Amino acid sequence: MNISPLQAARYQYNPKLPGMLRHGISEICVRSGGATESVADQDKIKALFPNTYGKNEIVFEKGVNTSENKKLTVGVILSGGQAPGGHNVICGLYDALKATNPANVLYGFKGGPSGLLEDDYIIFGDEYINQYRNTGGFDIIGSGRTKLETEEQFAIVVENCRKHGVNALVIIGGDDSNTNAAVLAEYCAAHDTGIQVIGCPKTIDGDLKNEDIECSFGFDTATKTYSEIIGNIERDANSAKKYWHFVKVMGRSASHVALECALQTQPNICLIGEEVAAKKMSLAEIANYIADSVAARAAKGWNFGVAIIPEGIVEFVPEFSVLIAEINELLAGSKADAFNVLPTWEDKYAFIENGLTKQSMAVFALLPQNIQQQLFLERDPHGNVQVSLIESEKLFSALVAENLKARKAAGTYSGKFSPLHHFLGYEGRCAFPSNFDADYCYSLGYNAAMLIQYGFTGYLSKVSNLSKPAEEWVAGGMPITKMMNIERRHGHDKPVIRKALVELEGAPFKYFAEHRDQWAVETSFVYPGAIQYFGPSEVCDLTTRTLALEKA
Amino acid sequence: MNISPLQAARYQYNPKLPGMLRHGISEICVRSGGATESVADQDKIKALFPNTYGKNEIVFEKGVNTSENKKLTVGVILSGGQAPGGHNVICGLYDALKATNPANVLYGFKGGPSGLLEDDYIIFGDEYINQYRNTGGFDIIGSGRTKLETEEQFAIVVENCRKHGVNALVIIGGDDSNTNAAVLAEYCAAHDTGIQVIGCPKTIDGDLKNEDIECSFGFDTATKTYSEIIGNIERDANSAKKYWHFVKVMGRSASHVALECALQTQPNICLIGEEVAAKKMSLAEIANYIADSVAARAAKGWNFGVAIIPEGIVEFVPEFSVLIAEINELLAGSKADAFNVLPTWEDKYAFIENGLTKQSMAVFALLPQNIQQQLFLERDPHGNVQVSLIESEKLFSALVAENLKARKAAGTYSGKFSPLHHFLGYEGRCAFPSNFDADYCYSLGYNAAMLIQYGFTGYLSKVSNLSKPAEEWVAGGMPITKMMNIERRHGHDKPVIRKALVELEGAPFKYFAEHRDQWAVETSFVYPGAIQYFGPSEVCDLTTRTLALEKA
Repeated sequence: MNISPLQAARYQYNPKLPGMLRHGISEICVRSGGATESVADQDKIKALFPNTYGKNEIVFEKGVNTSENKKLTVGVILSGGQAPGGHNVICGLYDALKATNPANVLYGFKGGPSGLLEDDYIIFGDEYINQYRNTGGFDIIGSGRTKLETEEQFAIVVENCRKHGVNALVIIGGDDSNTNAAVLAEYCAAHDTGIQVIGCPKTIDGDLKNEDIECSFGFDTATKTYSEIIGNIERDANSAKKYWHFVKVMGRSASHVALECALQTQPNICLIGEEVAAKKMSLAEIANYIADSVAARAAKGWNFGVAIIPEGIVEFVPEFSVLIAEINELLAGSKADAFNVLPTWEDKYAFIENGLTKQSMAVFALLPQNIQQQLFLERDPHGNVQVSLIESEKLFSALVAENLKARKAAGTYSGKFSPLHHFLGYEGRCAFPSNFDADYCYSLGYNAAMLIQYGFTGYLSKVSNLSKPAEEWVAGGMPITKMMNIERRHGHDKPVIRKALVELEGAPFKYFAEHRDQWAVETSFVYPGAIQYFGPSEVCDLTTRTLALEKA
Repeated sequence: MNISPLQAARYQYNPKLPGMLRHGISEICVRSGGATESVADQDKIKALFPNTYGKNEIVFEKGVNTSENKKLTVGVILSGGQAPGGHNVICGLYDALKATNPANVLYGFKGGPSGLLEDDYIIFGDEYINQYRNTGGFDIIGSGRTKLETEEQFAIVVENCRKHGVNALVIIGGDDSNTNAAVLAEYCAAHDTGIQVIGCPKTIDGDLKNEDIECSFGFDTATKTYSEIIGNIERDANSAKKYWHFVKVMGRSASHVALECALQTQPNICLIGEEVAAKKMSLAEIANYIADSVAARAAKGWNFGVAIIPEGIVEFVPEFSVLIAEINELLAGSKADAFNVLPTWEDKYAFIENGLTKQSMAVFALLPQNIQQQLFLERDPHGNVQVSLIESEKLFSALVAENLKARKAAGTYSGKFSPLHHFLGYEGRCAFPSNFDADYCYSLGYNAAMLIQYGFTGYLSKVSNLSKPAEEWVAGGMPITKMMNIERRHGHDKPVIRKALVELEGAPFKYFAEHRDQWAVETSFVYPGAIQYFGPSEVCDLTTRTLALEKA
């Protein structure tokens, strides 16, 4: 067997373009909107991007194509973590380039930004690209996490582009990659290289979102895949009626994934990092909040439930961040030597007790021993605690178990608490893109080709009105600088695209907050099931609950 | 939101019956096959089942229904672990009973066999049952693991049945539950209760399979769901190109699930417990086998891969079973006290070193410390090692890492090995049943009603020819005693249905064995994607690769 039946069937799918791009390349013209400015720190951003700042937003519409008919050679890279639909961005880009001029050429630089630096590439042809239509993964050219941000790197990129006659680059990535795309665009413009740079908004985390980006691609498919699995787990919990499932989902800096999954599956508990931070919740408070649900359900005879925990949750807990900082300080540099030579955990524990503040020691003492040990024994090459390794789903179930013990002793709880643990991440980043992501991504790529054809640079390929059918989508471009502000990163001011956190005043969180008390004590599970590609439209074509609520 | 769009759409699905059951109840007649005998130990089984042994196999066909027209009151239970399609068995049973005589009544006893003992039940009606059509889970009446096997229990069951006028029971379960169904049927016949008992073959593990049962229900959907996830992980591995994923899949006593997932996804490695046992492989040999693949791929620059590990694998490793037996012996009863008072792990380790044989100590010394500690510190109430808690996916990745260290030192390996771990179990037991399982289960239930109507007892609802379209399926019944033999269980001879292990001479394993060397070093991943319910027939209606190979 070479490919699955589904993969063969998905090759036949024709992604839907926005209505305005459906009439053929010769009937796409540009309508200019007003000049733009950055969301904040306008003077600083303007000074950093003299050649690309303040350009007009543009929208494509039906009309005579007025672009210059010249041969285009375009390069494309995939940057960062996988997201379903990346292949379709490249397919859309390829198809539009070939439809514009069969002599146009598309280079794929391999393994992410490093492919551009190392001049490692393939040239796309029909036969190769057809194997990747409507498929998941980034295996078409691979991806990587090398950051493209220094002038030295830019010079190499320009040199490699010139070697192949590449006059435009499309960078498919998250907030950092698009930030770097804007900086590269400015560099190319400032040095009169003639090389245009266009970004495409990718990330399953959903945190590349703003006034101009309704959603990043991949979020729809990944959250549907996680929700399928969570729904299956919920149904299992509700059938066996004896386990509490703690399900950690990917998403370190924002809890969009957790929130979307909660909206789709209505679990008993879903923690939201942004709320934990805003309310300055302690570990004990969070555990108590979960234990309230466990106890209320146990009182009804229901010793089962499902809790969704965002991967990055502990970093949002203020007292925990302080503890981590103290541990990093305590073991910085050569101080670690004195610790490392201590023979037993008991000796090490005494050392820790001595070194931490009273407040942090109280937090540390709360933790289960395996997590205490992990914090001290598994450190990165710089000696820092590896927060991402912390199994927060196990941490919270252990804290809840402690809390319930106290309730049992006090006579306020008499149930059974058997937790099981899951982590959902790699399970969803490379799923076959949903019809929505297949359409959206293909449109982003097609649209990127049009932006190149019309000579734009430093723009993000923008497709909006996404809660409506594809016919009504709006295709165009937005200067990336419009989304930027200045943030402090590693001790320096940097122009960056602002990361979108879950807004506690936004409609998705508010809907969740209005319903969660009921979900916590009732069994209101919803079972989304597997992503469908061929069925009725209400099953196959709807995008996320998050977007529906934001646009309602 | 109350139900998902997919659930609403699945309510509209009409499960396909075998052709011979499609003409309406009045046109179903019985064709008798020959008398049967048990697969082994015929004299003993016959003596244990004097009233139900040796009956004829029967098949239904189109013809005048000659059964007696009397009102039926039937009870049904779900027994053991969840499997997709259980709801449809009940729906098929209900529909056939109501089509036969609208006055027929179906009781659902709640929470598994205990519902029968505690007389905890619901009476099904259209409105209630319609909410569960073509859905996953066992939440329609719940399930449980109480074993129904003693005369005292049988007497209570008969009493409760008589109270409601129940004249037949349908038991939906695995090999143990169907064994017990046969014993109950014999009891009911011997005591002239007038109560018939029919079994239905359920288990995602795929180990309830024999000459008469082509596959147990749920296996198709569960393995498709796991394969979806494994395929997604494979695509992620092949995109990121930096992780080895160790994926443990459910299945303790047989490796059918692992094998089917391997046939669907073509991973680099899949361990098969039955082969490990047959070849008497040691932990070190298994680790070396995996490390061969890691090293061969690393030599090509591919520091990534996917390995499938069956949940029960360590129990198949002879030296490991010996070690477990020794540990259980070492800590039996009051001997554990001397161990428990030892203050440090070092002291405990010395105690262990003293107590184990040289051979077992060598195996123990190989294990990573967290697993060593788990074996001694987390024991069940009888003081036994909890083998099912052993994280075998982490055990093998740790052993592989050790093996690779030695290769690195010897200069035969210079790659990077970054393992990640997954466990797939609860993710698939309650998925929406595939079209195959929806059809098969509905047919099993419908067929069970026909067996009851025609007065059979001690029969298994049998639907066969399953690798063909449903039109060609063959519906009928088989005396459960035919599948039985005598096995030694807990020191007693017991009549049981023989558990089906993976046959090393069978077509599915042979296909795997012929291809795995190539899969180990190439990247031959196949990405099945999510289960589809509405698309082209080759995507939606095909059942497992295992069955296709067995029937080829």
